[in-house]
Amino acid sequence: MAPATRPKPLVCGPRLLADLEALSRFGRRATDHGIDRPAYSPSYRAALDWLRSRMEEAGLTVRMDAAGNLIGRLGRSSGPAVVCGSHIDTVPGGGALDGALGVVAGLEVARQLTDLVPGLTRAYEVVAFADEEGAYLSEIGVRAMVGDVSPDEVRSACGPDGPLADVLSRFGLNAADLSLAARPPSDFAAYLELHIEQGPVLQTLGKRIGIVTEIVGLLTGDLTFFGEANHAGTTPLPMRKDAFRAAAETVSAAFAAVETEFPAETRLTFGNIQLAPGAANVVPATAKLTYEIRAGDEALIDALHSRVLALAGRAAQRCRVEVADRTLARDAAAPMAPEMIATLESVASARGVETVRMPSGAGHDAQVMAGVCPTGMIFVPSIDGVSHNPSERTDVDDILLGASLLCHAVFDVLGCR
Amino acid sequence: MAPATRPKPLVCGPRLLADLEALSRFGRRATDHGIDRPAYSPSYRAALDWLRSRMEEAGLTVRMDAAGNLIGRLGRSSGPAVVCGSHIDTVPGGGALDGALGVVAGLEVARQLTDLVPGLTRAYEVVAFADEEGAYLSEIGVRAMVGDVSPDEVRSACGPDGPLADVLSRFGLNAADLSLAARPPSDFAAYLELHIEQGPVLQTLGKRIGIVTEIVGLLTGDLTFFGEANHAGTTPLPMRKDAFRAAAETVSAAFAAVETEFPAETRLTFGNIQLAPGAANVVPATAKLTYEIRAGDEALIDALHSRVLALAGRAAQRCRVEVADRTLARDAAAPMAPEMIATLESVASARGVETVRMPSGAGHDAQVMAGVCPTGMIFVPSIDGVSHNPSERTDVDDILLGASLLCHAVFDVLGCR
Repeated sequence: MAPATRPKPLVCGPRLLADLEALSRFGRRATDHGIDRPAYSPSYRAALDWLRSRMEEAGLTVRMDAAGNLIGRLGRSSGPAVVCGSHIDTVPGGGALDGALGVVAGLEVARQLTDLVPGLTRAYEVVAFADEEGAYLSEIGVRAMVGDVSPDEVRSACGPDGPLADVLSRFGLNAADLSLAARPPSDFAAYLELHIEQGPVLQTLGKRIGIVTEIVGLLTGDLTFFGEANHAGTTPLPMRKDAFRAAAETVSAAFAAVETEFPAETRLTFGNIQLAPGAANVVPATAKLTYEIRAGDEALIDALHSRVLALAGRAAQRCRVEVADRTLARDAAAPMAPEMIATLESVASARGVETVRMPSGAGHDAQVMAGVCPTGMIFVPSIDGVSHNPSERTDVDDILLGASLLCHAVFDVLGCR
Repeated sequence: MAPATRPKPLVCGPRLLADLEALSRFGRRATDHGIDRPAYSPSYRAALDWLRSRMEEAGLTVRMDAAGNLIGRLGRSSGPAVVCGSHIDTVPGGGALDGALGVVAGLEVARQLTDLVPGLTRAYEVVAFADEEGAYLSEIGVRAMVGDVSPDEVRSACGPDGPLADVLSRFGLNAADLSLAARPPSDFAAYLELHIEQGPVLQTLGKRIGIVTEIVGLLTGDLTFFGEANHAGTTPLPMRKDAFRAAAETVSAAFAAVETEFPAETRLTFGNIQLAPGAANVVPATAKLTYEIRAGDEALIDALHSRVLALAGRAAQRCRVEVADRTLARDAAAPMAPEMIATLESVASARGVETVRMPSGAGHDAQVMAGVCPTGMIFVPSIDGVSHNPSERTDVDDILLGASLLCHAVFDVLGCR
């Protein structure tokens, strides 16, 4: 279909940017302009109050569910909705776009629907999901909405303002009622999320729009090497049981292996290591090495995990130390729906916008929604790949292009042509 | 000369062991029996008071110098003395032998001289040097005695009980008077020190006596790698600037190099590493890696240092990070005097005791004395190489054999045959 035959749901750029700016003030530090807006905090509450009134001004019917998700709805009051969403909580010292962009763009989509499709017969929702960043429990809002939060994890969750149950109570919610937030899959016709890439790939490729193929799976663990503390001067190298040497050899060998044996999009990170006793003149007795593996393909994650363990075992043997492995987290990869990928690509190509397919290396609310309905994600470039940082930025033109494509895609899925 | 023609200066085993036991009670923890006896502390003062009275009972003329060294003298009141010594301060949670053995054995030598050589025409001293372990300033006592402490280092030294100047003042000494402890080289005829090996070499070789050839030189430094903090999920490996990866590759490559290109007695240790930000899902931005190089040959230390820096530079380049090197300490190697080595070997062989020549990987008061007079050291085995630890142990027979050889050597040097 030629672009001329479509209605033209336009994004009102100044309004969308003003919303982003207004939202960024809640929790913003005076010093470095980083934003402190953890879920359920006073700054988060103030941001939600602001968002609620903006939603109401846009003609949405607004409610907060039992998990603290803020939901604005347009069109039919029941039945499956096309949902746009993301989150407005931030990491400590976060930026103005991570999460906020998807919510504000979803709100702008609602306004375009109100303006251009007065008699919407289907339903549209924009949702600000609670605690995507995991100050208490990662993605608790969206997980509660699909009925995937256990009472046990709620009980043990703790964050910057104390135990989650207490924090929820002060926020006006009841931890015991969290399950009331759950909705059946039939409530959701589709889910679309616009997000900044948070990485350097689009900028490096010179592309303005990424279409997410899957949100990668993740395995976090730690390897602890157990050697022997010895005097650095008196213990010959062959008599040592150097836990750090074994850890360092594991890191070197694992990177070499991932680069030569695994696809380029596989991610391996050793984010921390702690030695004991950690003195200049003592051979390290223990080394605790944190690792994280991410890949779009579950089998790849498992294969790289096995490879890392084997290399650690070999290094441990060479250094005459013991090694123990613990898996700390394991999230499955979440493929995006082929029909959503096709829709996003077609609305883009119809407007002459080049796109690139790419995995999302970071987690998003979309990965949970992908389990209950056809889900798609649009990425816009992060300047220098920076995120979770006050200097997180995206070119204004890219922001508006991403929001516009989101809007076109929603119109498409809703059949509003 | 056949053994039968010599006088037989015997060590009184029970007395020497009782002294070690008595001394070990000062600062001993109730929990793990580790000894907390840092220089100038109350437990150190109590130990010195005990030692002073034991010295006086042995007929020594005792004085404490301006640095807190306790000096017991026998024979001529002036002129060069043959000196035995070590230290009675400990590391936190130290053992009963490190330092203490050399002092207690030196005291026993004095008693043997008193008993067997009533008209000693030359001079003998036993010295407990202050702060060998460096709670405030490593080897400050012996360095003050040879006139090698600068006012600057005294001013800036700080330890478990605060600034050194304050601690000295509470101890009854004056930091400004430290230089009064200095004595001319002509005061010293020779220096002999008995010490536990603090390493596993003698035990591994099945030898009971080591004759130290030199105290190795030492270079301590740190390498800081400067990369970039990036999201572990969104940043492809080739786009990262991973400071930890560069550090780990440096460690692996440096150990491989030292093992293939350097003599077996070369010691390379990476005792600590600190990453920032140190989160599981963030590529490390900086890695600060502590290294220590020890070798008996100064040129070897410099060569290995250059090699480590070159490997670090190469790893940094591969990982697209920067690297900076700092030298934190540099102690020159201290060779023992050939005539002292010969004397120690001859008194041993005359008694059918096998010895093995070995470098000392640890620092000792002897390394400073070696700069002013002919110096020798005897090592006895450390069980499992353990030291600086409550479970530091040496077989009683080895303790007594070492003390006996020290005694024979002193008699030899004094010409008391």
